[in-house]
Amino acid sequence: MSPQDRLPLVEAMRTAIAASTAVLGTTSPNPPVGAVILDVDGVVVGVGATQPAGGPHAEVMALREAGEKARGGCAVVTLEPCNHTGRTPPCVDGLLAAGVAEVHFAVADPNPKAAGGADRLRAHGVEVGSGLLEEQVRRGPLRAWLHYARTGRPHVTWKYAATLDGRVAAADSTSRWISSPESRAEVHQLRRQADAIMVGRGTVLADDPELTARAEDGSLADRQPLRVVVGAGDLPVGARVRNDLAETLHLRTHEPKMVLAELAARGVVDVLLEGGPRLAGAFVAAGLVDRVLLYLAPGLLGAGPAALAEAGVGTIADTVRLQFEEVGMSGPDVRISAVFPR
Amino acid sequence: MSPQDRLPLVEAMRTAIAASTAVLGTTSPNPPVGAVILDVDGVVVGVGATQPAGGPHAEVMALREAGEKARGGCAVVTLEPCNHTGRTPPCVDGLLAAGVAEVHFAVADPNPKAAGGADRLRAHGVEVGSGLLEEQVRRGPLRAWLHYARTGRPHVTWKYAATLDGRVAAADSTSRWISSPESRAEVHQLRRQADAIMVGRGTVLADDPELTARAEDGSLADRQPLRVVVGAGDLPVGARVRNDLAETLHLRTHEPKMVLAELAARGVVDVLLEGGPRLAGAFVAAGLVDRVLLYLAPGLLGAGPAALAEAGVGTIADTVRLQFEEVGMSGPDVRISAVFPR
Repeated sequence: MSPQDRLPLVEAMRTAIAASTAVLGTTSPNPPVGAVILDVDGVVVGVGATQPAGGPHAEVMALREAGEKARGGCAVVTLEPCNHTGRTPPCVDGLLAAGVAEVHFAVADPNPKAAGGADRLRAHGVEVGSGLLEEQVRRGPLRAWLHYARTGRPHVTWKYAATLDGRVAAADSTSRWISSPESRAEVHQLRRQADAIMVGRGTVLADDPELTARAEDGSLADRQPLRVVVGAGDLPVGARVRNDLAETLHLRTHEPKMVLAELAARGVVDVLLEGGPRLAGAFVAAGLVDRVLLYLAPGLLGAGPAALAEAGVGTIADTVRLQFEEVGMSGPDVRISAVFPR
Repeated sequence: MSPQDRLPLVEAMRTAIAASTAVLGTTSPNPPVGAVILDVDGVVVGVGATQPAGGPHAEVMALREAGEKARGGCAVVTLEPCNHTGRTPPCVDGLLAAGVAEVHFAVADPNPKAAGGADRLRAHGVEVGSGLLEEQVRRGPLRAWLHYARTGRPHVTWKYAATLDGRVAAADSTSRWISSPESRAEVHQLRRQADAIMVGRGTVLADDPELTARAEDGSLADRQPLRVVVGAGDLPVGARVRNDLAETLHLRTHEPKMVLAELAARGVVDVLLEGGPRLAGAFVAAGLVDRVLLYLAPGLLGAGPAALAEAGVGTIADTVRLQFEEVGMSGPDVRISAVFPR
């Protein structure tokens, strides 16, 4: 294939990222990977993404679509193709059998059992490139899974909405709505992409949230995350979180490590922690919040609860320090993402 | 002058804005205006800015520098030239006497006494344009003065630094430092440009701030704003705010309207409100905060005071609503400016 005829690899990687983003929340504990096959002329002949656990990986899906057109072509994948037989055969075998001449991936596989894919491809004469749009993939669709692969713990995003003066509710506890419709729609999309949404039992008692993912028209999204309520004591029989619109798990402990171990055992990789302040404080104090996602609304209240309580910090020198990763607008609100320095 | 030889007017306006910004804090109650004179070939031959009250206006300063080169040239001014004899003669007279052929200004004069400058220039055959970089001037160097001209009240910017979870100090009241050195340097520059810095007496008792404007090396800035402390009761004899590094005004009232009337009577146009939470709450409740400037630090505390108290809001429907005007980075912090919808 001549370079000038060829669909740029970066475009193909963007397509692979989009394919992986579309399956977020459906693949755990497997990584949500996207793959694109270009034929010998650089034309897209296959696009695939990881299927639910036990199903085919992204490369296999894309190769199936490409069929014989993959021969002599190029595979563009968000994660290094695996060299490991789990519930499915190694993706490297599939790529070699299909006769692709080149493989480009964004992120190397951090899993020692699955790694070695690049080396084995090279040993079979395949040209291999890595690092294409790597940061975009690391911070995007593979963020939670890479954390899980490194630590064995689910990735926790603490999400909240607050006013400019840091309140998450008014003096009379009303909080609907602090943030804009645009921000709430984003959060429903985040819920749809997460494996689990977590709240404390106190939040269930106080606000009776349903914790479902909904579309902008109010209809239920096509998939629902696991609803997780933590804390001793029963949940009220009529609590909305007990309805049959989604699965619910009640863990009778607040202890962050135990909670995450339970969730990991159930194949949960990506958790959205939605409150309340004491549960968030316990996770922050335990060092088990990995990302803070704040929807900051352009309002002032002057009274009402703060987002975070009892995080174990007594003096300014002990401030829990993060760094801003992304700042943008969400309708009239500011969306702020902060993570811990690596 | 042929258009292609000519320094673009927008460049000249930028120079005028820079000249006006350089005199912020020195001109009140007069507006901080910048003026640039281009000769007949479009070359900058004069730059001026408003001198302290009683002194020459920007146009006069720029015309003085230009001398005879102004004849047939162009004046670019941030505010419509005045047509009013105050302590100085009308700027329109000066422009006509100098023989400029064109005048371009950003913002029309809102003061009925001083307005009419554009009309009178046109009546004398001068080509007049308006609106060039108008928003930049309105939100920038003329923001406070335009508010003052419209309302008769000083413009109040409430400035604070908070963590991601909305705290302005830790549980033990330590607050040095919530924000980064970069943000603190910005605030010193804001102080230098303000007419007055205001705090409550409680802040003086609790933190003993000096409330001076300093350069990054710690030395005193070339000008100091009026330090204003509000609240009944004496200030401690040894309070740093009573030192002789700047002038201090102690107003024995917290009542926002009375405070601003006192300050207006002293020619104060631009006030930086630096705390504490109750004083800020009183100003917010009275509708007398015009701009909120938040330095948001990427830290979490989980305990400690919030920035704002007792703003008169009891329930979410009564949230004081602003809109974000600018969001940017200040070192590792996020700088957020919010104003009230017009």
